[in-house]
Amino acid sequence: MKHCLIAIATCLLLSTAAVPVAADEERATATLESRQGLLRMVRFYFGPVLGMVRQQIPFDAEVVSYNAEKIAELSAMIPDAFALDTTEYDLTTEALDNIWSNTDDFNAKAAAVGEKATALAAAAAEGPAAVQAAFGAMGGACKACHDEYRVQN
Amino acid sequence: MKHCLIAIATCLLLSTAAVPVAADEERATATLESRQGLLRMVRFYFGPVLGMVRQQIPFDAEVVSYNAEKIAELSAMIPDAFALDTTEYDLTTEALDNIWSNTDDFNAKAAAVGEKATALAAAAAEGPAAVQAAFGAMGGACKACHDEYRVQN
Repeated sequence: MKHCLIAIATCLLLSTAAVPVAADEERATATLESRQGLLRMVRFYFGPVLGMVRQQIPFDAEVVSYNAEKIAELSAMIPDAFALDTTEYDLTTEALDNIWSNTDDFNAKAAAVGEKATALAAAAAEGPAAVQAAFGAMGGACKACHDEYRVQN
Repeated sequence: MKHCLIAIATCLLLSTAAVPVAADEERATATLESRQGLLRMVRFYFGPVLGMVRQQIPFDAEVVSYNAEKIAELSAMIPDAFALDTTEYDLTTEALDNIWSNTDDFNAKAAAVGEKATALAAAAAEGPAAVQAAFGAMGGACKACHDEYRVQN
């Protein structure tokens, strides 16, 4: 519901009958930059935990918990950032068009990332083995969405 | 404290004695992209509320409240995203070097944005006049940071 309201509000804000096509292109580009920015922040908080799981840096439960909570907050914003269907625009993007023909599934997969991130935050206090398992589960949730909705590199 | 831990973890993860200079450049660029992405998401949630305050789109208390809460969450991430001092790198950035010589003040200004965003979320239920005032206060907090720490366009 909130996602719809935001999409409508954004749409109304940025497109009126008087707005030329260039403004639509600008809106699509701004949306692209927002959603890419969001996923860069997910990666930003993901990185240090990955380093711990790979034993490249020392385990730190406080950082695991803090970063996982941030990933949960950010992943809750994914449906908002992808609310605007940009398939009609000529964008350089890794987002596949089927995001907007399977919105409910896409949003459910984003929600799954959030649930696994919250579980990872809770696992931090249990030590490295629990974190490794919870991190793997979160990574699996990320991958499930990427496999379906992101260009395969 | 958490910001320090994250900065240390990120630093340890991405820089070891064996890592060449290119990896440092890559790390700085990734950091730049993360912080720019974070602020793009702030703008993403800011836009519809601006549209309402300007009476370009209909007032919607639910969207105001929701978006303001997201801005509060995102602004809490600003100290993390700017924890790494990138002044030594040749980046195309609007971030001024004094961010890293005035870290406490920079972080306090980011925290002020979060406080004003939370106040804006609370004001949503009070109607358009209260939102206009609270939005102005939040905009003022954004500007206070931009005036000091962002390139003046």
